[in-house]
Amino acid sequence: MFRNTMPRYEILSEQAMNTLDGGWRRLVSEIGVEFGSGRALELFRQAGQKVEDGLVRFDPEFVLEQVAKAPSGFDLQARNPANTVHIGGDGMAFGAVYGPPFVREGNVRRDAKMADFENFARLSQVFSVLDSAGGVVCEPEDAPLDSRHLDMTFALQTLTDKIYMGNVVSGENARDTIAMTEILFGGRDTIEETPATISLINCNSPLRWDERMLDALFEYCAANQAVVVTPFLLMGAMSPVSIPAALAQQIAEALTGIALAQLIRPGCPVVFGSFLSNIDMQSGSPCFGTPESAIGLLATGQIARRFNLPVRSGGGLTSSQTPDAQAGYEALMTMLPTFLAGINWVMHSAGWLEGGLVASYEKFVLDVQVLEMLQHEFTPLEIDEASLAFGAHDEVRHGGHFLGAAHTMERFRTCFYRPFLSSSENYERWVRGGGKDAAARAAEIARAKLAEYEPPPLDDAVREELTEYVTRRRRELGD
Amino acid sequence: MFRNTMPRYEILSEQAMNTLDGGWRRLVSEIGVEFGSGRALELFRQAGQKVEDGLVRFDPEFVLEQVAKAPSGFDLQARNPANTVHIGGDGMAFGAVYGPPFVREGNVRRDAKMADFENFARLSQVFSVLDSAGGVVCEPEDAPLDSRHLDMTFALQTLTDKIYMGNVVSGENARDTIAMTEILFGGRDTIEETPATISLINCNSPLRWDERMLDALFEYCAANQAVVVTPFLLMGAMSPVSIPAALAQQIAEALTGIALAQLIRPGCPVVFGSFLSNIDMQSGSPCFGTPESAIGLLATGQIARRFNLPVRSGGGLTSSQTPDAQAGYEALMTMLPTFLAGINWVMHSAGWLEGGLVASYEKFVLDVQVLEMLQHEFTPLEIDEASLAFGAHDEVRHGGHFLGAAHTMERFRTCFYRPFLSSSENYERWVRGGGKDAAARAAEIARAKLAEYEPPPLDDAVREELTEYVTRRRRELGD
Repeated sequence: MFRNTMPRYEILSEQAMNTLDGGWRRLVSEIGVEFGSGRALELFRQAGQKVEDGLVRFDPEFVLEQVAKAPSGFDLQARNPANTVHIGGDGMAFGAVYGPPFVREGNVRRDAKMADFENFARLSQVFSVLDSAGGVVCEPEDAPLDSRHLDMTFALQTLTDKIYMGNVVSGENARDTIAMTEILFGGRDTIEETPATISLINCNSPLRWDERMLDALFEYCAANQAVVVTPFLLMGAMSPVSIPAALAQQIAEALTGIALAQLIRPGCPVVFGSFLSNIDMQSGSPCFGTPESAIGLLATGQIARRFNLPVRSGGGLTSSQTPDAQAGYEALMTMLPTFLAGINWVMHSAGWLEGGLVASYEKFVLDVQVLEMLQHEFTPLEIDEASLAFGAHDEVRHGGHFLGAAHTMERFRTCFYRPFLSSSENYERWVRGGGKDAAARAAEIARAKLAEYEPPPLDDAVREELTEYVTRRRRELGD
Repeated sequence: MFRNTMPRYEILSEQAMNTLDGGWRRLVSEIGVEFGSGRALELFRQAGQKVEDGLVRFDPEFVLEQVAKAPSGFDLQARNPANTVHIGGDGMAFGAVYGPPFVREGNVRRDAKMADFENFARLSQVFSVLDSAGGVVCEPEDAPLDSRHLDMTFALQTLTDKIYMGNVVSGENARDTIAMTEILFGGRDTIEETPATISLINCNSPLRWDERMLDALFEYCAANQAVVVTPFLLMGAMSPVSIPAALAQQIAEALTGIALAQLIRPGCPVVFGSFLSNIDMQSGSPCFGTPESAIGLLATGQIARRFNLPVRSGGGLTSSQTPDAQAGYEALMTMLPTFLAGINWVMHSAGWLEGGLVASYEKFVLDVQVLEMLQHEFTPLEIDEASLAFGAHDEVRHGGHFLGAAHTMERFRTCFYRPFLSSSENYERWVRGGGKDAAARAAEIARAKLAEYEPPPLDDAVREELTEYVTRRRRELGD
């Protein structure tokens, strides 16, 4: 896990913050928020909020009281303790792309298969800058629909020993995730003590929480598992076209979802989620890596800190259809602000292509390269007398070069970050090597890493118990 | 010209700043700086500095006294007053790539020609985010070596009406640039009152200023034309391998060059220049878009502000051989910090490829796209009651969409930045359009923009006088 101890880049003035504060208070109290769950409505009613026709009109102070019960950070345990992460504070944890129905490999774009899911899990295990394969790294169409959450969870649990995300399609799927997590970690108590899954609960924005997602939220919160409560805002469609309006709405949605989580189980680990970009107002297509999204991201980090909550946002997002220059600059247009904003949980860190419809092998490797660079960039510089290398100047003098200086000889192996994908070869050498662009080189690296991959050790009894669970549940689910 | 009124991202503590301060003071006083110019040595001797064997050992306080004479900012006039820029403060001005001997167009890499130079000048004129074609946008091998500076200056003066850079190959070339600038702007007085050229004076780092560059410096400073005094530091070769050492050296070189400029003409406009990256310690190749370079860039902005000087750094740098994903992420890895650091004069903003050896048509357009996005991103958000769009929420309510809301209808044309190159088309539509990647689309845009180009108006008498000057001087130079 990366610790980002560099300064935060904050762009909202106190006055702007107060205006946004007025905005979300008015939304939750006057427009209200819809909750598609009788259980949720009943909890809010019991807590004294105005509930009518599936709508809750909140007292903003009540919302803040609930939010204050959430921890400002929490550990999320991995089965390999070395891969346990802290979500919050200066911690940044990175997971792979989440949700694509398609896969792209070279020039071929096709339906995602379980074999792809497993490959992306393996790649996530191999690259140390990634803390997680995430959850649905792609949606495998060849796995049976009703039970594929079992296959995905099993793959995440066995092919990696890093943290993983829980399934949120339904309350039942959430229960399966928790049951399998209990098996992997040796019982309910240990995962209730330190959460072992993190799950994405999306709002059906604007201002509506749907039943299926809420059912999953109930399960995870009851088991003290972490939930990322995420407004899903493509400005122009699910929010007004102005960024401040989207930010106020995002606060209203996230905080009311978090208030519900705290009513279910006070103190359960939650993350202030943000998925904020805009649509193209001519075509209606979602756009990623946009200036508006970057501004929203920086503001979101600042806002979440105000509420003393861990924050999820960012990633290597792009609208591009291929791992080309646009994919390169758009991904960084979101990922660099992700670091500037000090985001704690970063989904979609590797492999996202084509607006999240596609998981790309090449883009996965490209994103890992960018992540490594940014983790180096956001490591504070140590400046002391020794680092000034006066002796090297005394040795080299005017117009010389430092290649052979003693100071260089001592440090040359580790002084600079060495990229594994980026090329700085001279032209002739690059042509002799085949003249491959970054995407072609990334494809080769992906293949090589998969060939090298070795599964992390897992106790045979645990593996057997997990397999039995999956087999039994698949039968019960009729697949 | 862009005004960057967003906050600066500053990474150096007061203690770090003090350590660097001690570093440059020790370098200039103990190691000293070499000046390959008798005139320069004589000026320093007269000013009471220790001069011996071409070396000057400085009293750091003397250096600071000279530096204090330089303006913190200055206007640089263009022949079209609408294109005049301010170098300093919150101003950011952007020029194209500078110096490549090669051109790349599609899959063809070849020697640069004068026709390419002219085309890049035209593209620089067409795109409004660029303030200048720069100077040597490429090095045209088909123009005679001794007189090509005349052809380049003539092209910059006639094909664009934006600011341009002066030639620095020799004092004679500088005199030609100034003479042609006098013709274009109607005499010496007007350009002495408000400078009309900005010229790049590179240090032959470490700690050596060469005669030819200094001869150009003397000419430009005497004419009150702006000079960008730039240490050229590829860490590991021209500076020690530690970033703090490079920063201290950069200060020593820049400030002593600026001190000379102020001795030549007190108050003449100067820019604290930085060209700071690192080499690959295995191959010796220069690398661009590196984490080390980004850290250096952020620090450089902060340092230059400390000395109350305008600063040049940044650009769309990349080592990549093609306009691929690496070119996309590396360019942004430098260009985004350029904005965060509030750099005033940004060379290499468009077209840089392959470590600056190649001027690329496609990369030019890609960089312009990124620049437009960043200029939008670094425009402060206005947050007030109206921007919260409460009425739109009242209209749309829960789970609806904002596409047809009155608030959307009023603002949809201008609410978001619309890219001209990035694609967010759905896959089927993108395939129907030919499945072109960003580089292929950029090539088409470059061709279309060149076809649309119209030269800015220029007084016939001025054009004739410039032509006569070029013809006469070419004859004198024997070409």
